[in-house]
Amino acid sequence: MSASPDQAAALAAGELKNLLKGGLSGLDEATLGRLLAGAAAAPESEDPDAWLSLLGGSLDGAARERLRAAKRSLAERALGSGSSATEATSAGRLAALRNELMRRGVAGFLVPRADEHQGEYVPPRAERLAWLTGFTGSAGVAVVLAEKAAVFVDGRYTLQVRTQVDTRLFEPCHSAELPAEQWIAANLPKGGVLGYDPWLHTLDGVARLKEAVEKAGGSLEALADNPLDAVWSDQPAPPIAPVVPHDLAHAGKPAADKRQELAAKLAADGIDAAVLSLPDSIAWLLNIRGADVPHTPLPLSFATLRQDGTVDLFIEKLKLAPGLERHLGNGVAVRAPAELGSELDRLGAAKARVLVDPATAPSWVFDRLAAAGVKPVKGDDPCALPKACKNPVEIAGTRTAHRRDGAAVSRFLCWLERETARRAVTELEAAARLHEFRRENPLYRDLSFDTIAGAGPNGAIVHYRSTEKTNRALAAGEIFLLDSGAQYLDGTTDITRTMIIGHVPEGAPGAEMRDRFTRVLKGHIALATARFPKGTSGSQLDALARAALWQAGLDYDHGTGHGVGSYLGVHEGPQRISKLPNRVGLEPGMIVSNEPGYYKAGAYGIRIENLVVVVPAEIPGAERELRGFETLTLAPIDRRLVDASLLTRDEVAWLDAYHARVRAEVTPLVDAETAAWLAGATAPIG
Amino acid sequence: MSASPDQAAALAAGELKNLLKGGLSGLDEATLGRLLAGAAAAPESEDPDAWLSLLGGSLDGAARERLRAAKRSLAERALGSGSSATEATSAGRLAALRNELMRRGVAGFLVPRADEHQGEYVPPRAERLAWLTGFTGSAGVAVVLAEKAAVFVDGRYTLQVRTQVDTRLFEPCHSAELPAEQWIAANLPKGGVLGYDPWLHTLDGVARLKEAVEKAGGSLEALADNPLDAVWSDQPAPPIAPVVPHDLAHAGKPAADKRQELAAKLAADGIDAAVLSLPDSIAWLLNIRGADVPHTPLPLSFATLRQDGTVDLFIEKLKLAPGLERHLGNGVAVRAPAELGSELDRLGAAKARVLVDPATAPSWVFDRLAAAGVKPVKGDDPCALPKACKNPVEIAGTRTAHRRDGAAVSRFLCWLERETARRAVTELEAAARLHEFRRENPLYRDLSFDTIAGAGPNGAIVHYRSTEKTNRALAAGEIFLLDSGAQYLDGTTDITRTMIIGHVPEGAPGAEMRDRFTRVLKGHIALATARFPKGTSGSQLDALARAALWQAGLDYDHGTGHGVGSYLGVHEGPQRISKLPNRVGLEPGMIVSNEPGYYKAGAYGIRIENLVVVVPAEIPGAERELRGFETLTLAPIDRRLVDASLLTRDEVAWLDAYHARVRAEVTPLVDAETAAWLAGATAPIG
Repeated sequence: MSASPDQAAALAAGELKNLLKGGLSGLDEATLGRLLAGAAAAPESEDPDAWLSLLGGSLDGAARERLRAAKRSLAERALGSGSSATEATSAGRLAALRNELMRRGVAGFLVPRADEHQGEYVPPRAERLAWLTGFTGSAGVAVVLAEKAAVFVDGRYTLQVRTQVDTRLFEPCHSAELPAEQWIAANLPKGGVLGYDPWLHTLDGVARLKEAVEKAGGSLEALADNPLDAVWSDQPAPPIAPVVPHDLAHAGKPAADKRQELAAKLAADGIDAAVLSLPDSIAWLLNIRGADVPHTPLPLSFATLRQDGTVDLFIEKLKLAPGLERHLGNGVAVRAPAELGSELDRLGAAKARVLVDPATAPSWVFDRLAAAGVKPVKGDDPCALPKACKNPVEIAGTRTAHRRDGAAVSRFLCWLERETARRAVTELEAAARLHEFRRENPLYRDLSFDTIAGAGPNGAIVHYRSTEKTNRALAAGEIFLLDSGAQYLDGTTDITRTMIIGHVPEGAPGAEMRDRFTRVLKGHIALATARFPKGTSGSQLDALARAALWQAGLDYDHGTGHGVGSYLGVHEGPQRISKLPNRVGLEPGMIVSNEPGYYKAGAYGIRIENLVVVVPAEIPGAERELRGFETLTLAPIDRRLVDASLLTRDEVAWLDAYHARVRAEVTPLVDAETAAWLAGATAPIG
Repeated sequence: MSASPDQAAALAAGELKNLLKGGLSGLDEATLGRLLAGAAAAPESEDPDAWLSLLGGSLDGAARERLRAAKRSLAERALGSGSSATEATSAGRLAALRNELMRRGVAGFLVPRADEHQGEYVPPRAERLAWLTGFTGSAGVAVVLAEKAAVFVDGRYTLQVRTQVDTRLFEPCHSAELPAEQWIAANLPKGGVLGYDPWLHTLDGVARLKEAVEKAGGSLEALADNPLDAVWSDQPAPPIAPVVPHDLAHAGKPAADKRQELAAKLAADGIDAAVLSLPDSIAWLLNIRGADVPHTPLPLSFATLRQDGTVDLFIEKLKLAPGLERHLGNGVAVRAPAELGSELDRLGAAKARVLVDPATAPSWVFDRLAAAGVKPVKGDDPCALPKACKNPVEIAGTRTAHRRDGAAVSRFLCWLERETARRAVTELEAAARLHEFRRENPLYRDLSFDTIAGAGPNGAIVHYRSTEKTNRALAAGEIFLLDSGAQYLDGTTDITRTMIIGHVPEGAPGAEMRDRFTRVLKGHIALATARFPKGTSGSQLDALARAALWQAGLDYDHGTGHGVGSYLGVHEGPQRISKLPNRVGLEPGMIVSNEPGYYKAGAYGIRIENLVVVVPAEIPGAERELRGFETLTLAPIDRRLVDASLLTRDEVAWLDAYHARVRAEVTPLVDAETAAWLAGATAPIG
């Protein structure tokens, strides 16, 4: 929770003194050191100088340059030493951790890829799994025992883990086939203590672990501090990036109103206070945005919301952009992160009824409250549902953002068709070009995730990220899958298009590709046109998107739709369209993706993804309260891959109407060449 | 668990002595009294003399007649005194129960409509809710406090409860809107003890109650014996009906093989013994059938299955038909019901790992094991899944049973069309006529449930049962919904057909009826033709059956499909096709119903139900292991109600192919008149 002293001292005192000369009023050496270390641990922003606003005062050009250089040097040092293990460094790190465990008398320790907020993107400081094992996937956990160690990853990463991890040190396991819990039950020595960091596991997760450990006749113990951190001498500092207001023009509802509405609900449920551990919940509630992790404008922080509508925000104060405290208002007290514990103690002493989410909050919160004498009320994060149901301003914003994003994608698709007709374009070049089109927009702030640009067989790797090593040229007759999105101030986008490259002669693309593409499209249309009663969950609708593939004995191994935030996470809950059971009804204002796909290993991948927003469905004579989807995403779907003979009349009508809408809404925003291309790309097929 | 002494003595000693004169060797008065009381508490069977086989010896005609008369007289007495409360008797019964609760020092008591086996059909002895309140629905619970009482029923019964229950005594509540738990939390006095009978609640149910009671600041207490039973002086005895072997020719696998296979699985999971509390699990495992409750051949009993494949069957020995013990074999020990407790004590003393299903077993089992020193392993009833996946002999049997059942239904439909064209037929007459057609078959044993025959507006009541009071004539131009099924030795059937009555002139039935019927049919076909990967659950497929209705703003408030046993329960788990989340994959051999519907209150009801069996789907080029359905039910779907213009080409093809199959398979089994009618009723519409 606090910057490591090693890291804060990473710049020599002399250097810091020197930097302070440039007119940084009110900053002392220690604070400046902390700020620089934090800035170095934050992701590079579109405006690389944004962090300088946190220094206060007016800086002259020379001072700015000195500060930039100092941050750059720290960031480079971090990159050199604090990053993923290699075969050369992993053994030493593992040995050091085992020594530390022995010193503490614990038989083993869990190293999840997780931070205190269970985030999808975590700051460098929380990349403990990568530091120890070399594995850089977005999900996984290592279990380290005295004699054995294993790393558990899901189906997306079973190949990657073997290329990144020294398998003589860590047994690589597919978590669906051999869950960590089962390995623990089989390998923990009887009577052994398995330690874990209670900041990095949820209560639900701990309950599962406890069962496994008890099966092995051992015990599970929350460790007061993380033994890996103790041996990671150059662990990066917590990130420090500006936390800024999210304007009412985009947020649509004053934060004070949100606080009051949620507080009234807490009061009605007899809850005195709720603990918020999800930064996107806090960002939504307080109408603020941060920049602590890549691609999602999160302010890493904790908060408590009380029955009277007041909030304590536990956050590194150096992160607050000038004026932010005024934006937060009188109802929000800004407190240091380390004070969360004493606030929980106070709630415990007051015998308060405290709501905590067992699926997302660190188990540490439950432990601390229990120690303070109260058993928390387990329940969903109270922000999750109201955040998911976008208000009219947010919906209007996302429509505008999607129109602009559709223009950028259309310009890119036109460019791609022109360029690939005359020369080789690579995956990385294509992704970079699309990025350029998007960043021309003044409301653009970031990509919403790393672009997936998979040509030919690379498209079949669902979570593919192109690298210099795998970069492939887009070859004529091959399929190119492009999944990308952006963070605009007025909305978050996420779109996948699958294109056939180059001039397509008669008979090509092959019948199989067109059959698969058309089946994916049928699923996409079935979901886009679905109507369903109030209370219907995404898991009830999932099969509609798969049925056409199932008829041919095909399927895809990912969900059909995820929730999307409003200038927030491109993945958010609580709604979801997937095979996994989910009881959350799809309510008006919820944004979800509609992205069925098909993947042929070693050959190609197909995915058609639009974002949609849940709307009330007006049906004459309806006897129930019905919902439907309005498609937000606006860009052509490659007609050359559609086999119209497989479509019903209604499906053809949908595709033609969608394309007509794309043409009408996007044409005014693009250049003449793109407009001309768009006219052809959106012509009716019916 | 044992017959009430009052009941056993219901025949005077003199009468019993008299009966024993007829050559009943080896029977004493007490045993005969018990047997007669039990036989009187069992449902009337198709062979009303079957119970006489339990008396042993050879009976002359006069003795049989005396015994029949004695049983009849007991059954009539029970009907007169032991049955549902009326407005006149309910107040007295409630007062007596409250006195008893006060005497025991408990503030309240729960009276669920449940027996020890959580059965859908319960014996008269377990109709405590009806005895106390007058409510005779198949699900509900009363909560009795000192000053207040309430009865909770689901949506099916909100009207019925008000006609049957004295609402000055019991507040009628819709359990979806005000669950019993919530009412308890609001009404139980602080510090009050809420009592419950641990034989009648599952562990999962008790956990939910406990939470509610703790919210109210009270406590929940398992009572050693049921206080209602203490004041129900003429409570019927436990039923006694013959338990007979289920022949290998129908069961398809020897019971010893089933025991060994399950035992191997227990051993692999490190389980020493499993407690079985579901009579259909026991019936399946041991290849036996009983007759203790209506419409399902259940032998009410408990059992334990050990890791070595041996079974202790806890059952009233008087129920066993001659020779049954030999059929059970050496691996099965028959023990008295009362010995279950001491067996659990023995397992506890041995520190055995005992598997118990928290969703179905009485919480009493958990309490007893805990008292004996072991914490049971919670898990699914080990019989549930293998019982659900029918073996090839059972599947062949069910196909044959459905062919015969389809012949009976076709004969009925032909009769119905002929008769209604010239005279008024009532719901009750129609149901009786269909029953006659079915019982002509030698393998027929029982209806599988009370026939639902709803004409016009009665069809809109989903769980309608025609009575003399509601009985309605089938009027020309109206829709008639008929849901019925039978228990044959080789299979259980369940079919719903919806017919238009009388000569149908042009323009009638109305466009709306045909639209609704056709949408229901589209849903039925979508499910019938679905293909889906291994592991797909019924809740994932449910929307396929509803989508066509949803498009018009319509829906139905029941599940789409329930599991069906093989000459066992017409409702069985663990699979289910419904909106409710369910993780059980549909595996080959599982039988489920496919029954979408539409109900217009006050006007008509539509349902089209076939049973289907899950089969492996053979698809050329398939990349996944796919499943599909084979339709078992064979009877025409009323073509006059189909609007072919709403069907796709594939849907028309399905209906025509289905009808061609009905014609081909059923025609050889029916008379010439029916055959001729069938030819028209199954003619192609395409």
